[in-house]
Amino acid sequence: MRRALELAALGAGRTSPNPLVGAVVLDGAGSLVGDGFHARAGTPHAEVHALAQAGERAKGGTLVVTLEPCCHHGRTPPCTDAVLAAGISRVVVAMADPNPKVAGGGLAQLRAAGIDVISGVAEAEAQALNRAFVHRIQTGRPLGILKWAMSLDGRTALSNGASQWISGPPARAWVHRLRAQCDAVIVGGGTLRADDPLLSSRGQRSPEPLRVVLSRSLELPERAQLWDTSAAPTLIAHGPEVQSEANADARARLAALTAAHPDVQTLELPTCTPAALLDALAARGCNQVLWECGPELAAAALREGCVQQVAAVIAPKLLGGVPSRTPLGELGFTALDQLPPWQAAEPQRLGADLLWTLTQEGP
Amino acid sequence: MRRALELAALGAGRTSPNPLVGAVVLDGAGSLVGDGFHARAGTPHAEVHALAQAGERAKGGTLVVTLEPCCHHGRTPPCTDAVLAAGISRVVVAMADPNPKVAGGGLAQLRAAGIDVISGVAEAEAQALNRAFVHRIQTGRPLGILKWAMSLDGRTALSNGASQWISGPPARAWVHRLRAQCDAVIVGGGTLRADDPLLSSRGQRSPEPLRVVLSRSLELPERAQLWDTSAAPTLIAHGPEVQSEANADARARLAALTAAHPDVQTLELPTCTPAALLDALAARGCNQVLWECGPELAAAALREGCVQQVAAVIAPKLLGGVPSRTPLGELGFTALDQLPPWQAAEPQRLGADLLWTLTQEGP
Repeated sequence: MRRALELAALGAGRTSPNPLVGAVVLDGAGSLVGDGFHARAGTPHAEVHALAQAGERAKGGTLVVTLEPCCHHGRTPPCTDAVLAAGISRVVVAMADPNPKVAGGGLAQLRAAGIDVISGVAEAEAQALNRAFVHRIQTGRPLGILKWAMSLDGRTALSNGASQWISGPPARAWVHRLRAQCDAVIVGGGTLRADDPLLSSRGQRSPEPLRVVLSRSLELPERAQLWDTSAAPTLIAHGPEVQSEANADARARLAALTAAHPDVQTLELPTCTPAALLDALAARGCNQVLWECGPELAAAALREGCVQQVAAVIAPKLLGGVPSRTPLGELGFTALDQLPPWQAAEPQRLGADLLWTLTQEGP
Repeated sequence: MRRALELAALGAGRTSPNPLVGAVVLDGAGSLVGDGFHARAGTPHAEVHALAQAGERAKGGTLVVTLEPCCHHGRTPPCTDAVLAAGISRVVVAMADPNPKVAGGGLAQLRAAGIDVISGVAEAEAQALNRAFVHRIQTGRPLGILKWAMSLDGRTALSNGASQWISGPPARAWVHRLRAQCDAVIVGGGTLRADDPLLSSRGQRSPEPLRVVLSRSLELPERAQLWDTSAAPTLIAHGPEVQSEANADARARLAALTAAHPDVQTLELPTCTPAALLDALAARGCNQVLWECGPELAAAALREGCVQQVAAVIAPKLLGGVPSRTPLGELGFTALDQLPPWQAAEPQRLGADLLWTLTQEGP
């Protein structure tokens, strides 16, 4: 199972909307005769790869797989059929598939066919590996990670806005790796205007994550790195306000922008809110998104339950400054006992900087 | 020397204005026959304790001491006299005494008397142990430590001022231990009004550190824990403005306060600034002080070079908030390359919280 979990992790950042899955096939004598992992949605599942590699040697053998085999026709045929066809005698599974189309049905089908099924082996590791997928299945929205870099006095920029670079090269390389684990990276119009970010994984994920600008005013710069979609796709999301009489200017700006950059996608949300954006991104197959936005949008995302993990990079610097540039805007708390609990990981050094990650319990 | 350094550290927080010193005496055969440390200013030095314990067995032996023996009459006679009288053959020293009254003179006197002198053994450790003393001797001001507790989004309080308790009990116990290493703890009037702090080591240092309120306006509360000096002394420091015609109110407030609490000390500084306060505290024998103040006084202390170490306790919480309560006010930087370099220690867990300490290079 440990090997199957390692194999599953090889697909990280590329399988959405599907989960990460790894599989190993042992023959009747216990020798490893096949392995595989799910590499990309629409391509064969991990079990199919592993069984194909094992061939005839799978007969009477054991399939070890990190997730319950599917029993439904999706973009590929049910894996349970492949397991039965291969003559497998025993299936060891880490966790049931939370997808309501499966949800134990795959295991039941295998048991009904006389296969010895063991479930729950290394379940905690498997759940952690697919936390984003499970979260999306359970809540209908992708798992949200909020990331920022700040000085030790909690500033994300000097008073005059200067912010490049608070953190050092190892921390910036870590951000690229983090983006490679995400299906979309989200900023607001303010961050776009102030920083003109590239928001890519620098080639560590292919395709690059979808770059999303959530903007109510649509006051977006005419020139921006995001408008060049040769390396990564870009989506401008906005609310229905743009259709109102009073917002003819915003409408015209959006029209001019998309005329100049026809490959930039646009999307009108029911409301210009983080939650509505995540609903739309789930429908586009996103399991995990990264918020790289300014304080107001970050606070709104937190208030609307769109952030399950916070990753703060802290630089050993003191910026000071009034008016202050801080990671988060108003969260609406009036007493410290109102704060929701966060689970803190062990801090990690990224060169001179420090990474501290907080995770919310549950979905 | 390692044992001598450990002995020296036993005096931490109690020897000011003197340094921490430990000493070990070995007899001619290399057996340990005496040891001691400096416990408090005005009491015998480490060498005297160790030599007294060794008695006759010191003759022909070795004295190992963390700091050059003094050669001047202070509150106690010169240690060089005691070394010579004991018949010591060899003296091993970690570092020279930076005090200009000694500064190599002690070692020269011993060498002139025919004693074999070795200097510079474990010098880095000895320098680190007495960093505050060396800093005061070299700069004329006590070493300043600035401490704050904040949430991971860099807030020291909610918008409405609620701040008890952002950090947990282990972090608060660490603050008491930190205070026990300091000769004075400094706040401004704002912190006194908002938090009514006790500012003591909770008995871990005897006497307790001097509690200092630096206030320009003297708008201080009539009732405050600091006005009860039964457990720890309190000093109100202010500038000369209080004497002006326009500040008759402030003068009256101070007079009323000291009439009600005659044991609270007052001090008029040449200017109401962190630097002037540290000059005055150096004159009172302080080697190390702790800034536990709000953002404006903390920023002023940093700008005036009155902070050599920053210790931030970071709680795994997100407070948010506008207007923001942050650790530091304006530091006057307009570009990130203007920031002075800080040396970061490895982060340390204090229960659920994180302690990260930055130290400035040099004095």
